[in-house]
Amino acid sequence: MNLLLKEILHKPLLWLLVFVPVMFAVEVLRPEAHTLLFVLSVLSIVPLAGLLSHATESVAAKTGDAIGGLLNATLGNLTELVIALTALAAGQYMLVKASIAGVIVTNTLFMLGMSFLLGGLKHHTQDYNRVNARLQSVLLLLATIALLVPSLISQADATADSGPFLQSLSLGLAVLLIVAYALGMLFSLKTHKEVFASSGGEGEHEEPWPMGLALVMLAIVTVLVAAVSHVFVASVQTAAEAFGMTPAFVGFIVVALVGGAAEMTSAFSGARKNRLDLSVGIALGSSSQIALFVAPVLVLLSYVLGPTPMGLDFWPGAVAMMLLATLTATVVTTGGRSAWFVGVLILAVYLVFAMTLYLLPPRVQ
Amino acid sequence: MNLLLKEILHKPLLWLLVFVPVMFAVEVLRPEAHTLLFVLSVLSIVPLAGLLSHATESVAAKTGDAIGGLLNATLGNLTELVIALTALAAGQYMLVKASIAGVIVTNTLFMLGMSFLLGGLKHHTQDYNRVNARLQSVLLLLATIALLVPSLISQADATADSGPFLQSLSLGLAVLLIVAYALGMLFSLKTHKEVFASSGGEGEHEEPWPMGLALVMLAIVTVLVAAVSHVFVASVQTAAEAFGMTPAFVGFIVVALVGGAAEMTSAFSGARKNRLDLSVGIALGSSSQIALFVAPVLVLLSYVLGPTPMGLDFWPGAVAMMLLATLTATVVTTGGRSAWFVGVLILAVYLVFAMTLYLLPPRVQ
Amino acid sequence: MNLLLKEILHKPLLWLLVFVPVMFAVEVLRPEAHTLLFVLSVLSIVPLAGLLSHATESVAAKTGDAIGGLLNATLGNLTELVIALTALAAGQYMLVKASIAGVIVTNTLFMLGMSFLLGGLKHHTQDYNRVNARLQSVLLLLATIALLVPSLISQADATADSGPFLQSLSLGLAVLLIVAYALGMLFSLKTHKEVFASSGGEGEHEEPWPMGLALVMLAIVTVLVAAVSHVFVASVQTAAEAFGMTPAFVGFIVVALVGGAAEMTSAFSGARKNRLDLSVGIALGSSSQIALFVAPVLVLLSYVLGPTPMGLDFWPGAVAMMLLATLTATVVTTGGRSAWFVGVLILAVYLVFAMTLYLLPPRVQ
Repeated sequence: MNLLLKEILHKPLLWLLVFVPVMFAVEVLRPEAHTLLFVLSVLSIVPLAGLLSHATESVAAKTGDAIGGLLNATLGNLTELVIALTALAAGQYMLVKASIAGVIVTNTLFMLGMSFLLGGLKHHTQDYNRVNARLQSVLLLLATIALLVPSLISQADATADSGPFLQSLSLGLAVLLIVAYALGMLFSLKTHKEVFASSGGEGEHEEPWPMGLALVMLAIVTVLVAAVSHVFVASVQTAAEAFGMTPAFVGFIVVALVGGAAEMTSAFSGARKNRLDLSVGIALGSSSQIALFVAPVLVLLSYVLGPTPMGLDFWPGAVAMMLLATLTATVVTTGGRSAWFVGVLILAVYLVFAMTLYLLPPRVQ
Repeated sequence: MNLLLKEILHKPLLWLLVFVPVMFAVEVLRPEAHTLLFVLSVLSIVPLAGLLSHATESVAAKTGDAIGGLLNATLGNLTELVIALTALAAGQYMLVKASIAGVIVTNTLFMLGMSFLLGGLKHHTQDYNRVNARLQSVLLLLATIALLVPSLISQADATADSGPFLQSLSLGLAVLLIVAYALGMLFSLKTHKEVFASSGGEGEHEEPWPMGLALVMLAIVTVLVAAVSHVFVASVQTAAEAFGMTPAFVGFIVVALVGGAAEMTSAFSGARKNRLDLSVGIALGSSSQIALFVAPVLVLLSYVLGPTPMGLDFWPGAVAMMLLATLTATVVTTGGRSAWFVGVLILAVYLVFAMTLYLLPPRVQ
Repeated sequence: MNLLLKEILHKPLLWLLVFVPVMFAVEVLRPEAHTLLFVLSVLSIVPLAGLLSHATESVAAKTGDAIGGLLNATLGNLTELVIALTALAAGQYMLVKASIAGVIVTNTLFMLGMSFLLGGLKHHTQDYNRVNARLQSVLLLLATIALLVPSLISQADATADSGPFLQSLSLGLAVLLIVAYALGMLFSLKTHKEVFASSGGEGEHEEPWPMGLALVMLAIVTVLVAAVSHVFVASVQTAAEAFGMTPAFVGFIVVALVGGAAEMTSAFSGARKNRLDLSVGIALGSSSQIALFVAPVLVLLSYVLGPTPMGLDFWPGAVAMMLLATLTATVVTTGGRSAWFVGVLILAVYLVFAMTLYLLPPRVQ
């Protein structure tokens, strides 16, 4: 427990933990204060996501390479998964899909762009391992294309009555993606470890917690994230209206930034240390994981948890954004050389997306 | 003739030749057994395509570099051309277009993906000549974009009354593509032979037939393929319904896999021998040929053979698939390094496409 | 003045200057001869654009690196800007947008393709600096994506009532693009000069004019271009009908070829001298400038000069062409090796676009 306290004192991000009890207090005392609850839940998720990722890494570090890697790969986006699951159970499919799309777009544009910018402000040009970055970006592009096929076809082919067709296609696709994900794990943890080596945990110099603490923390923090997500999902609609934000903006931008805060800290510090491999690996790897694992798992769980099965059809604007974002990431990382202005332009594309989503008139779900 | 028999005994694929007479017998005795005839015609085309490509290569080997290369380049997709011509004469334009699109998608995804997978299962990582692969994939991307412009514009611009506009555009485009193809031949056979050298015939260690046998075989097998295609085209619609397959699925997947069986054998064996250059060359070259030569020839011949002129407009889903497939091939081969999981993900995209086409509700032509 | 005369005698392109007074004479004497005026205005703009770019370069050469680079970067597309401003003031937004799109497409396809072809006819293969070309093509791709977001979203999302949404999005985007452009100038002129060094002015061996002459010429020629543009814009619609050209074709192809004649001369002569870096730099740089500077400036000025604010929404076909053109440029220049047939295929794509625009039935603005 001392270890935990020391860490909290050491990391300013963790000071935000104070908002967790505040949020629960407000929820009991003033359950109708949606806007306040929304802000508090956002402020609470950020440090919890940080703790969650530290707990996962600690367990992973103690269980050895294979199981550790598996854990890291599966629980790496646990925050996003828990938020999405809460929205799923509440039947808010629009929010679920927006957050899937948003995490992919935010990781490939904001996380990558900010890494290039921060790294570029410190180093004149930065070169990184092209071959591995390329392999990872090809994997991400393929994963995104596979994820988007139902949307592309149902858009392109207006005559296709989307109902039952989309549902069976989404189900088949979900199974296929999960199989691909399992094979990908075999690839990255067994047969081709060395490709992913440099983007592994070694970039972070955080001391791993002892196994007992790590496991307890993993359990407690997951429950806390779930509870906070519950408040977040319940308050988001009313709060978004109060702030003049569209649901699309909240799902795309707010959820993605909030849920990914911990990973972004790692990616940015890697870039500052001239280890762009690490930043690119985190950004691309995390996005692939959303496409290959989180999205299909949510489809499958919608049969159990949701009011109706959820299909993998995204609204056309989200499809365009996801394709452009991953295409951008692929083209940019193919270069293997970066400078600050590349980061600026990637962030400009992200800002244009965010601006569009902010201004977009809200649509019927 | 002994040579031919020895070859048949040696190659299991050729044993399928037994289905050719069986099919003709069934056609005479039970012409209404569409499903049976469909299966038999598929089984017959596979070995005939193999013989056809061997005959072409033998003639090419004897006639020296220039004419030989020309023959190889023109007759390389003869099977697909004959099938498409039969469908064209029968006025089945939907099937013609689906098979053009399908061959491009199947060659760039299935042939390439399976080559990477089979090669990767044997070799840890495979490097290949990036510069040449890149040049070839750029050529394919440009050829596909040119081919798709009419579809993209007529889709994008709904106000454009598609009738006469599309027809004159398709005609002009067909002439342009054939001129580009002729210049491409000049490029690959005359001025820049060395770029395509490694993907040339030397990969195959098949003994060429003597000139006389080769020419006779070329004539006989072409007639046989035409006759079998006739049965195939006549039975496909009824059979597809019996199997629950949409016409789009048959055109895209079945025709492309059946017609390309011989080339795939070469590409896969190249990959196993760690000669990915060869596999990439066959896959990309064959796709370019469809876009630059087979498609425009079919448009021009539709003025002579078909009931009405055929336009180069594909249905939107096919456009999306072709663009994504060639984009994937371009991005993947740019890397110049492959491992088995890249193959898995390319095949996953192909499977998603196939699944989509299989589930797609049939549309009015 | 002698210097000017000597230059005119030396450069055949400048002989076209004789059409400037002829055009003004015709405008006074036969103001209703729209077709003749159109032809004369086109013939007049070409040499004026040449003089304008020489004047800009001369001023730039005398004012030292930083200010000179700034001038070159801002005034490099002055001709296109003046034409577009004239059309803007006349409320012809369709022509303004077509010319923005057309310059991007023409520079990335025609200028690049012709450079590769002309260079390739003289040199077997041409290699150029991949890393810098890649950085520049990434910048162009990102700039184009940013520019196209409003169009993509408003197309994709049919329910979005495009009016006020598009207007505020276009305004915000214009401000963002100009900020990005300013940062880009800081990048290319201050912090990362060396990336753009080889594509700088040194390729041109034209003698710079003395400062006085250069400034006077800059002023006079700008006024002349504005006056000629006025005639051009006033006559284009009637003349286009007479020639059977659609307004889209005129904006896309004619304006872009006419306005870019001077830059093209530089790019082509660079390619012949085996300095493809220079050609690629001019083509990509000029396109980026249109997307990041000219287009947003026109949006902002439409609030002052135009009848109503102009939005940054392009018609769907133009979006497809711009995306495909910049994607082509990105993929092609990533290769870093060129041969004549690459040029042929890029030109084929351009020809298909031009053919489409020529045949496209005219639409209501």
